[in-house]
Amino acid sequence: MNAPATKVTPISGFPELLPADRLLELHFLDVIREVFELHGFAPLETRAVEPVERLLGKGGDADKEIYGISRLAGDDSGRDAALGLHFDLTVPFARYVLENAGRLAFPFRRYQVQKVWRGERPQEGRFREFTQADIDVVDVGELAPHFEAEMPLVIAEAFGRLPVGEFRIQVNNRKIPEGFFLGIGLTDVVTTLRIVDRLARVGPGPVAEMLVESGASEDQARLVLELAGIRADDLSFVEAVRSLGVSHPTLDEGLEALSAVIAAGMEQAPGVLVADLSIARGLDYYTGTVYETQLVGSESWGSVCSGGRYDSLASDGRTTYPGVGISIGLTRLVHLLVTKRGLTASRSTPAAVLVAVNDEESRGRSRAVAAALRANGIPCEVAPSAAKFGKQIRYADRRGIPFVWFPGAGDDGGDQVKDIRSGEQVDADATTWECPAADLRPTVVPPPA
Amino acid sequence: MNAPATKVTPISGFPELLPADRLLELHFLDVIREVFELHGFAPLETRAVEPVERLLGKGGDADKEIYGISRLAGDDSGRDAALGLHFDLTVPFARYVLENAGRLAFPFRRYQVQKVWRGERPQEGRFREFTQADIDVVDVGELAPHFEAEMPLVIAEAFGRLPVGEFRIQVNNRKIPEGFFLGIGLTDVVTTLRIVDRLARVGPGPVAEMLVESGASEDQARLVLELAGIRADDLSFVEAVRSLGVSHPTLDEGLEALSAVIAAGMEQAPGVLVADLSIARGLDYYTGTVYETQLVGSESWGSVCSGGRYDSLASDGRTTYPGVGISIGLTRLVHLLVTKRGLTASRSTPAAVLVAVNDEESRGRSRAVAAALRANGIPCEVAPSAAKFGKQIRYADRRGIPFVWFPGAGDDGGDQVKDIRSGEQVDADATTWECPAADLRPTVVPPPA
Repeated sequence: MNAPATKVTPISGFPELLPADRLLELHFLDVIREVFELHGFAPLETRAVEPVERLLGKGGDADKEIYGISRLAGDDSGRDAALGLHFDLTVPFARYVLENAGRLAFPFRRYQVQKVWRGERPQEGRFREFTQADIDVVDVGELAPHFEAEMPLVIAEAFGRLPVGEFRIQVNNRKIPEGFFLGIGLTDVVTTLRIVDRLARVGPGPVAEMLVESGASEDQARLVLELAGIRADDLSFVEAVRSLGVSHPTLDEGLEALSAVIAAGMEQAPGVLVADLSIARGLDYYTGTVYETQLVGSESWGSVCSGGRYDSLASDGRTTYPGVGISIGLTRLVHLLVTKRGLTASRSTPAAVLVAVNDEESRGRSRAVAAALRANGIPCEVAPSAAKFGKQIRYADRRGIPFVWFPGAGDDGGDQVKDIRSGEQVDADATTWECPAADLRPTVVPPPA
Repeated sequence: MNAPATKVTPISGFPELLPADRLLELHFLDVIREVFELHGFAPLETRAVEPVERLLGKGGDADKEIYGISRLAGDDSGRDAALGLHFDLTVPFARYVLENAGRLAFPFRRYQVQKVWRGERPQEGRFREFTQADIDVVDVGELAPHFEAEMPLVIAEAFGRLPVGEFRIQVNNRKIPEGFFLGIGLTDVVTTLRIVDRLARVGPGPVAEMLVESGASEDQARLVLELAGIRADDLSFVEAVRSLGVSHPTLDEGLEALSAVIAAGMEQAPGVLVADLSIARGLDYYTGTVYETQLVGSESWGSVCSGGRYDSLASDGRTTYPGVGISIGLTRLVHLLVTKRGLTASRSTPAAVLVAVNDEESRGRSRAVAAALRANGIPCEVAPSAAKFGKQIRYADRRGIPFVWFPGAGDDGGDQVKDIRSGEQVDADATTWECPAADLRPTVVPPPA
């Protein structure tokens, strides 16, 4: 590229990482994918674009968030439907299920890790381009409730293998507040839920005021806040709700469903799942269980992994596909861990070894050493020039490469390898040398507390 | 999503895969990434968008290919530069290098695997959205020539591990035709190169006519075609060029540089690298070595992996960054292998085992079996319902899952596992059972010839 006049500057909301931080992000992606695959989720990718009409179909004020795309040359724009970039992975997945229903086996379990785009105003930890990592299970007509317990347990396993420290997955069931509100005579469930959803941000006083403004009595507002105040990492939340003296069939359904999820959590991931009756998720298409996830000590970051159940993930008018899913906000999670907790990778390259070059004539020998190391799965590179060894060692040091290999440095003309951290240099044979397991791949530093 | 009215249809040029084919594509991505990392390339991702001005800076008629993006709500469009989706990974990488030069260690080796978008008219095997897998090495001021030999050897290693059959990487050096053209008195090198670049598509007759139309004599045209006809998988191409009786210092430089690349290939990947003096690559920013790759028996697919050297990958006006890189057209390659050679994955899910459920009351026992298998790295899922075992086995069969696990089916109340392909059912313990290595992950079927 001959230098264009355009200034080289970051674009607000479109984050990019330096190599060491990208290695950290890749470690997260690898662990997440491994856990998703261990649980039998099939990988899927959907195109980045959808017809704008479908993106808008979600309702709410989603139109504010959508990036439309159009060919700059523009000479065939009349022939295509208007297209926009997807703003989540749920809308395209629902469309994919409808489009391929005849070729998929249901219940269908898939994971999907892709960029999404939202034209929102960027702010700390909020991006216009970011990666989500989703799992969903979708079935035809009916979806078994045990999948609602499975989703957060898969996430618990993934987060348990990641350097995120302690975390809590907060679970609620929409039917609990819905049945409770109806049981105390508040029939505008959606409005009440939206107000309660603001509890964590504005506190109970303003929420009570908003409830009264929306038509609730002081007593009703008090009961709503008492319900939202209930949280427990065991089944005691049922008794706490019952003690408020409200009954409604939908409330009973919700309590039973949430009990099943929490009971599974107590069995398989003790202390991780918390029944939190304040969790509502603003989006109005969730119909059952809802999830949010907080890192302990970093609650102000908000939820880093959220989802829930939809009775109608997709529908073609004849057949309805209920689903349940959960989504890790990967870009945001990694960004916050890098900037707030100082995490990064131990080096800026996958290479564990730099093979030194004695002189350009013997580059072939160094290349053969590298090939032998790679044949044993050891990432390495050959020094870019036959500079003085001090300079070659500095090349490795700047990148965090722990070992430098010296062909022919041994007394007998064999090779030697130096650990440049300790300075220790020993005889070695490239066909048999074993790289210490801890040095084979970049690791996360500093280790989580 | 409540069903929007939008019809659910594919969008021309935006391909999507079914799960088994996506598993095949992921296998390709995994192998490519592993080889890139074994060679010490650092992973990088850049944002999907660049200022349109920078995308246009590439020259040529690139503007026809660009998708612009804009917020549908559009109320802050005046504040941002016009943005477009990147159409390759080279332009954003060059910008990234300039933007982060102070924080990168040079020579800088990176790989990048991402979607790109081009607004071209879609045709068989050509897409508007597709994934490229690139490696590049970039340095400051000067770039050592041995990197030009390294690029195709990394690709040879990756392709050698992939089910693509035999392949040839064709290599040329721009300086050979350039020096040769100048040596025979053809001074409009770019025009002559562009005409020769059409040789594979239109044949020698029309190319000779076009050369003469552009001002070449019959003799010059004949010599140009004779040069373009030279190919060899050893160093004999040098003698073949010399026998044409043309000399020019630039030609000498080119022959020496190409000899070094081919010699490295003969040593490390015999038979894979071919000196092919007809390879020009239409893009005019290549300045040295250029690469194309063909699968043997599928030459009509065109190149599936191309690249070359730029003396000025990036420049900020003071400092110039020369680079060399090569790019696998992954979407196209996988699409052609799936549609033309019938490749796919052996199953449509990562799961190797389906754990049957005797009744809903004992789902916990089945979940415990699955947890034990996963702890040993065996992907599995628990049956979605406690249906008759025949139905549970059909669930596995439809997805290609090879094993079904039956908790408590043994005479002693222990578990049994059935290979549903052979029907063999044996006693097994989930904490110690070893999944046959060939069944642990989906494999590619049919195997390459």
